[in-house]
Order: sequence, then C-alpha cells, then structure tokens
Amino acid sequence: MKKKLKELAEFVGGTIVGDGEMEISGVASIDSAEAGQITFIANSKYLRKLETTRASAVIVSKEVTTADKPLICAANPQLAFVKILPLFFAKPYQSKGIDPNAWISPTAQLGKDLTIYPHVYIGDRSRIGDSVVLYPGVYVGEDSVIEEDSVLHPNVSVYSGSVIGKRVLLHSGVVIGADGFGFVKDGKTNVKIPQVGQVVIEDDVEIGANSTIDRAALGQTIIRRGVKIDNLVQVAHNVEIGEDSIIVAQVGIAGSTKIGRNVILAGQVGVNDHIEIGDNVRVGGQSGVFQDLPSDRAFLGTPAFLRGEWLRAIMVFQRLPEMKKALSQIEKRLKEIEKTLSLKGKEK
Amino acid sequence: MKKKLKELAEFVGGTIVGDGEMEISGVASIDSAEAGQITFIANSKYLRKLETTRASAVIVSKEVTTADKPLICAANPQLAFVKILPLFFAKPYQSKGIDPNAWISPTAQLGKDLTIYPHVYIGDRSRIGDSVVLYPGVYVGEDSVIEEDSVLHPNVSVYSGSVIGKRVLLHSGVVIGADGFGFVKDGKTNVKIPQVGQVVIEDDVEIGANSTIDRAALGQTIIRRGVKIDNLVQVAHNVEIGEDSIIVAQVGIAGSTKIGRNVILAGQVGVNDHIEIGDNVRVGGQSGVFQDLPSDRAFLGTPAFLRGEWLRAIMVFQRLPEMKKALSQIEKRLKEIEKTLSLKGKEK
Amino acid sequence: MKKKLKELAEFVGGTIVGDGEMEISGVASIDSAEAGQITFIANSKYLRKLETTRASAVIVSKEVTTADKPLICAANPQLAFVKILPLFFAKPYQSKGIDPNAWISPTAQLGKDLTIYPHVYIGDRSRIGDSVVLYPGVYVGEDSVIEEDSVLHPNVSVYSGSVIGKRVLLHSGVVIGADGFGFVKDGKTNVKIPQVGQVVIEDDVEIGANSTIDRAALGQTIIRRGVKIDNLVQVAHNVEIGEDSIIVAQVGIAGSTKIGRNVILAGQVGVNDHIEIGDNVRVGGQSGVFQDLPSDRAFLGTPAFLRGEWLRAIMVFQRLPEMKKALSQIEKRLKEIEKTLSLKGKEK
Repeated sequence: MKKKLKELAEFVGGTIVGDGEMEISGVASIDSAEAGQITFIANSKYLRKLETTRASAVIVSKEVTTADKPLICAANPQLAFVKILPLFFAKPYQSKGIDPNAWISPTAQLGKDLTIYPHVYIGDRSRIGDSVVLYPGVYVGEDSVIEEDSVLHPNVSVYSGSVIGKRVLLHSGVVIGADGFGFVKDGKTNVKIPQVGQVVIEDDVEIGANSTIDRAALGQTIIRRGVKIDNLVQVAHNVEIGEDSIIVAQVGIAGSTKIGRNVILAGQVGVNDHIEIGDNVRVGGQSGVFQDLPSDRAFLGTPAFLRGEWLRAIMVFQRLPEMKKALSQIEKRLKEIEKTLSLKGKEK
Repeated sequence: MKKKLKELAEFVGGTIVGDGEMEISGVASIDSAEAGQITFIANSKYLRKLETTRASAVIVSKEVTTADKPLICAANPQLAFVKILPLFFAKPYQSKGIDPNAWISPTAQLGKDLTIYPHVYIGDRSRIGDSVVLYPGVYVGEDSVIEEDSVLHPNVSVYSGSVIGKRVLLHSGVVIGADGFGFVKDGKTNVKIPQVGQVVIEDDVEIGANSTIDRAALGQTIIRRGVKIDNLVQVAHNVEIGEDSIIVAQVGIAGSTKIGRNVILAGQVGVNDHIEIGDNVRVGGQSGVFQDLPSDRAFLGTPAFLRGEWLRAIMVFQRLPEMKKALSQIEKRLKEIEKTLSLKGKEK
Repeated sequence: MKKKLKELAEFVGGTIVGDGEMEISGVASIDSAEAGQITFIANSKYLRKLETTRASAVIVSKEVTTADKPLICAANPQLAFVKILPLFFAKPYQSKGIDPNAWISPTAQLGKDLTIYPHVYIGDRSRIGDSVVLYPGVYVGEDSVIEEDSVLHPNVSVYSGSVIGKRVLLHSGVVIGADGFGFVKDGKTNVKIPQVGQVVIEDDVEIGANSTIDRAALGQTIIRRGVKIDNLVQVAHNVEIGEDSIIVAQVGIAGSTKIGRNVILAGQVGVNDHIEIGDNVRVGGQSGVFQDLPSDRAFLGTPAFLRGEWLRAIMVFQRLPEMKKALSQIEKRLKEIEKTLSLKGKEK
C-alpha cells in the first residue's frame, strides 16, 4: 500500500518541503529506513542524520525549512510519525467468531463481532461488548463487564464483579480483581479482612503484562480514562489513579492511595498507603513516596523530596568520605589553635 | 438477611450501648454506610464521624460509652468488624463438580465435593483433597498434593512434587515450584544447577497474584502456617518463611534465607541470600537487607539498619548541601583565625 | 542406578583419593547426604564437615589430599557436582505426543517427537522444532518460531512474530513479545506508539517465572545466547542483553538499553533507558543505573557508582547525625576562639 507524501502531510496537519507527489511505501526508524520509506527526527541534535538516512522523506520540526530530500514539517514530529504508522501497519479489525473450545456460561451476554479463542472461560451473567477480543486462556469471572473494542491478551484473569471499559488493552498475565491484601492480627494470627469491593477500569486504559490490580476491600479500585500502566506493576485495594497518568514498570502503589491526573511514576517507584499525589507530578525511578506530594512538581529519592534538592544532596553523598576527612582535619586545626591561645593566655 | 445488634455483639464478644434489638442488614465503611448498616471506628481520631455517619450502629473501642446511636464496644473494633463481615457476605461452599473439559490424569487421586473448572490440568499421581476449588487454567504437575479446602485461582501453575496444605489461597498467576536460579560458571558459560528439591506450603497460607515460589535446589522451600504473601513477590530456592509472617507486594527474598515468625517485610524490600531474620522483625518499604537481623526490632534503609537511626541519618542527608556550605565557611573562618594568630605571633 | 567413584571422577576430570571402586547411588548436600551418596565442599571453611558428613564420598578442591573417606579432587568442586547430578536425576527425554485437546492451526509447522499438552494454542504459520515441550496453557501466536529442544512451562504466552532458539527454558507465566511501553503526548492524551518490532531469544537462554520481555517498537529486543534471567524481571522494548549475562529476580531494564556480555545484575536493580553497560560489569542489589557503566567493574547504589566508593560513602551516611553534632560543636568552639581573639584585640 502506498501513500503520497502530501496525503500524509495533510493527515498530520504538517507542511511539505519538496516533492509532495512522492510515493511512500512504509515507515522505519532513522537508522534502518530504506528507499521508499518515511522516518522522523524529533531531537534537533540528530538533524545531521538527514544527510545519511536512506529514507526517501523525513518528518521534522517546523524550524527545519530545507534539506536534500522531501520533508514534512510538523509541530511534534514524533506524534506525526506515530499517527502515520498505523496507516501502513494496522489491519482493520475482523471478527474471528467464537471458538467451540471456549467455555461460555449460558447466562453470559455476548455482543456482536466477537473474537473468542479456544480455552477462554466466561462466567455467569458476565457481559461482553461488541468487537471484544478474548485470547486463549482468558478467564472472566461472574458478573463482570467488558465493554466494546477491548482486547484481553492470553492468560489474563478477570475476577468476578470487575468492570472494564471501552478500547482497554490488557496484556498477557494481567490479573484484575484479586483480593486486596488486608489482615487484622488476632494475637499472632492474621485474620483475613474479606475483600468485597470491585475494580473499575475506565475507557482507553492499557495495562502491561503480569501487572496486578486488586479489588477494593469495600468500594472500588479505580483506574481512570486514558491511564497507561506498564508491566509487573502492583496496584493495591482502593487505589485511584487519575486520568492520563503513566505508571512505568514494577511500580507498587499501596492501599487507598490516590494518584492525580497526568502524573508520571517512573520505574520501580513505591508509594505508601493512604497517600495523595497531586496532578502533573513526576516521580523519578526507584523513589519511595512516604507522604503526600503537591501538584505540578518533580520528586526523587527515598523518601522522595524535590528532585533538584535530592540531586544536590546525592552529589554531596558521594563525597561523604572526603567530608569526613575534612572534619577531622578541622578538629586538628582547632585543637592547635586552642592550644596556642591557651599558651598565649599563660604567657601573660 | 438481617441480624439483631445484640446477636452481633455476642458473636464478637462486645458489649452493647443502646438498642440491642435493632436489626442490622449489612456492613460498610464509615463514609459509605447507609441506614440499616453497621460500621466501625478503629482510630479515636475519627470518633467525630460518629455524628455524621449514616450507619445505624457503630463498633467502637471500649473507651466509648455513649453516643447518639447504638454501639458495640469491643477490644479491637476492626477485628470485630472483620469477624462480622462474612455473616453478611460469605456464601457457604457448594461443590460445582468436575467439568468434563478439565484434563485429569487417570492416576490422580480426587477427594470429595470438588469444584474443578474447565481447562484445568491435573498430572499423574497428584492428590487433590476434599472441597478443593481449581479455577480455569490451573495446572497441577505430577506427584503434587493439594489438601482440603484450598482454592487455586485462574492460571495458577503448580510444578510437580509440590505440597500445598489446607485452606491455602493461591491467587491468579501464582507459580509454585519453578526452578530455583542457580548456575555455576564453566569459563564464561553458565551451567545449570539442577533444581531437584520441592516447595512445601503449610496450612492457612495466602499468596497474592503473580507471586513466585521457587523449588529448592535440594531439600525444600518452606512457607510456614499462616504466612500471608502479597502480589508479585519473589521467594527463591531453599527460603523458609516462619509462621504468621507478612510479606508485602514486590518483596524479593534471595536463596536459602530464613525469615522468622511474625515478621513484616514491607513493600519492595529485598533480602540477600543466606540471611537470617529473627522473629517479630519489621523491615520498612524498599529496604535492602544485606546481613542478619536480630529479633524484635524495626529496620529501614539500604543497607537496612535500626529504623530510628536511619530516620535520623536521612534527615541529615536532606541537608547535606547546607552542611557542605557550613564546612567551607568554617574553613574560611579557620584560615582567618590562623592568619590572625600568626600575625599576632609576628607582632611579638 | 549406581556408578563407581572412578567413573564419576573420570567424567568430571578429577582425581581420586581412596577407593575408586566404591559404588555411589545418589547425590545430596553436605548436611543431608546419607551412606552411599556423594556430596561436595566448595568452600575451604566447610572442610571440617568432611568428618561429620554421612556421605560415602566427597568432591573437594585439588588442595585436599587426604581424608577418612574417598574423595574426588576437582578444579571446581561445585561444577563437578553439578555435572554429576544429572547422572542420577535426569531422565532421557521421551515424547508424549500431541494431546487432542491442544488447538493447533492447520498452517502451523510441527517438528518430530513433540510433547504438546492439553489446552495449548499454536497460531497460524508458527513453526515448532523437534522435541519441543509445550505445557498446558501455553499460547504461541502467529508467525512465531520455537526451535528444537525448548521447553515452555504452563501458561507461558508468546505473542506473534517471536523467535525462540534451541534449548530455551521459559518458566510458567513468562510473557514474550507483549507491546513495549511507548506513548506520545497529544495535549494530555497518551497516543500509543505502535509496537511493530519483535523479540528474538537465542539458544540456551533460561527465563524465570512471570518475567516479561517486550517486543521492540521497531526492530528487535534481543536476548543473546546463554543469558539466564530469574523471576519477575522486566525487559523493555529494544533492549539487548549480551551473551552469558545473569539477570537476577525483579530487575527492570528500560527501553533501548544495551547490556554487555557476562554481566551480572543483582536482584531489584533498575536500569534507565538508552544506557550502555559494558562487558563483565557487576551491579549490586537494588542499585539504580542512570548512566553508562564501563566494562569490568563493580557498581552499587542509586545512582550506581563504583562499589568501593559507595560502601565508603554509605558507612559515613550511617554516622551523619554524629557528624552534624560535631559540626555544631566546631561552630561553638570557633565562636569562642573568635571572641577570645577579638577580646585580645581590644585588650591591646
């Protein structure tokens, strides 16, 4: 399938430099692109690659106005590229129907145009929306809802009573709605607090492989619209994650914590229970959040504090042995001075 | 189903303030409770909510003696609440039988009153106790034992030769008995150390979604009675975890380490191999344990040391840049003094 | 099955002290070995156990020349033991054939001597090599390749277009080829970057339970020959891990990072995106790698720096409160001196 360069420019709202009639047959990264393909340069420090790439056309930022080869100039070259990618790669959805080796409760409610693979299980009274895809080994418990156009990859488990919105992607091994981790001590014995709440996942959420979202003790664990969660992330009971937030791999969020909108938690961050994190907060990799974080700022460290301050502190940390040595030399010099002064005192 | 308040009080060993004949129809949290429901207040700082909650009755501590609404006064209000919860929520177990789409070895030994869902696999010579529930996608390898009343949620894998006790809950994606991680270098090549031991999980253990308990190299990896493990936890080969210990999400415990009884490891803690952690130890979130920890104390940090000391050290850490500045000012003042003294010396 | 001691010595290239005709019937650890069994001592500090072990023979290092019982002296006693283990434990591979409850695409290409359990799924045009074992619940997507002698344990998911080499072991719950985590912001909305690359796993790789290896955005995520990965490890899109490297449990490696050969990343290490780690590097547990690391050295800490320097810094860290106290005492003494000097000045 080929597209004219001017069609692509129009599609992403960019402007053309050079031959808009050129035909583009595919997309690739700057280093691997071949003749006929289009690529992009997001960072001006790579603009020198304009000369060496074998791509026939390049998407660049609006500052670039001339080059040896045709360009699309766009406000955000990477975003433009990402919008063009599916034109060459994506296949329109086609239902594969319902495999007879899936087990589906007679009381389940099934939408149109489904793709249900073998070895799927759908429990009593669950409702599956139109055009949903359930890969092999997917388990949907009783009384759950999966809305239209969602895709559950192989071996995903959705416990009973869960609600999953539209266009949600759950990757392999994701577990939705397992019991939250709650016990009360009766002497030394751990008595289980029944976990009778549910999980609600709103529209356009993506959750990475083997991540786990626990059901609420009472009430709901909520993942808001547009949240993207990476692999091996733990979301505990009664957590709420605000719209459009990004949770990177291996993050752990403890019970009843509330994350704002448009937040970024980098890889391996841990957040304590009953914390509130404001909107637009960014927390750096491996940080440990032990108290509320106000909106619109970047944090780092365990315990997490303002990123700039942590960076200054950690630079001194690396020089602590020198600092300790400096301290003992100061001690020596002080003693010397005190000795001198006392001698002087005696002299008089 | 309704219960009289005095019946509930009796059931949890509490005393009544107000109308014991009141009928209770359900349970809920303090903020979401409605008329007819009972809730609880565990922390005295929330006692003011006694006035605003819509609950018809509240479980409180023994210190509270009067209120606008009926009370149950109990030694541990949360524990009392947790004991009452199942009265309204729990359904008595009912066997659903064995689905013909499960694959069960003819040499497997099956107890009574089982619930075995479709797409389950039970290997040769394995023994499944009475009233066990195996959800879809559960795999039980050869020569394994699962004792009575245990529940294995969807897509749990139990490798061959594992032993799982009574009333054990394994959440979705749990892997029991995968090979421990052991290699010997032969030059640069990693030669696998055969992992021929097993996993033993005692009674009343709960293990969270996608956690992994490796089989021993030789001998046993043992999870003792009453241990509760959260999601995404790694327990390596030959580890032993003592009775009633609590292991929070994303903790990793390296090979041959021995954890005492009634220990709490908070989220994302890492414990090195061949370590011993004493009874009743608490280790704070994200800590890294690199040496043995004595019983009955709290630890924090990487490397973990006494909690109080770490908290003092980390407070100074955050002020390291100021401290460095103070040091250089001291240096300046010292030089000034030394200059003065030497001048004085010369004056004489 | 019994073996003569001299046969075992020959097999591992060791020399005999004592009766080479002795018959050995099994292997065990030094503490649990019984009469008739052979064990090993790798560390000279355990040589005293030579006297107390009930084993009939012991593998020791070449320095040991005499003992009360027969010995095999070997350059690396543990390696010799590991080579002997399979002689007593390993059963030769026997195909169990293809279970009729597996779902196999008519366009899949199947090798000889397979073992395909019930509830397996093999997608269109995938190729399965000779003597491969696919346990229950394994999913192999379209257009994937699994080469000869590989074993995929229960509930492993291999997305479409993945390539898995020879003698690869994937433990339960491993996910190969799920989408990498890539989004571009369009205002606040996260627009998904299509992940159209693949995963390539070379020969002799082992990957632990519930670990996840993401497909590349474009191009390949590559795990080189002989790499060993533990449980719950996250490998992001476009990462490359060099030959014979060891990645311990719960490590996370962010996108496009390149790990050298023969590297060791200890448990819970995090590595930032677009980092290069040189050959033979060792990174200690829980470290956070935020910049390139040169070859042949050991690193520790967050951010990771040279192991020796970090150990020195962390020792001072633990004494920061004392250091702060010392600083304020110095301040006091300085003020005292300055006062004295100024008095002296006035005296004149």
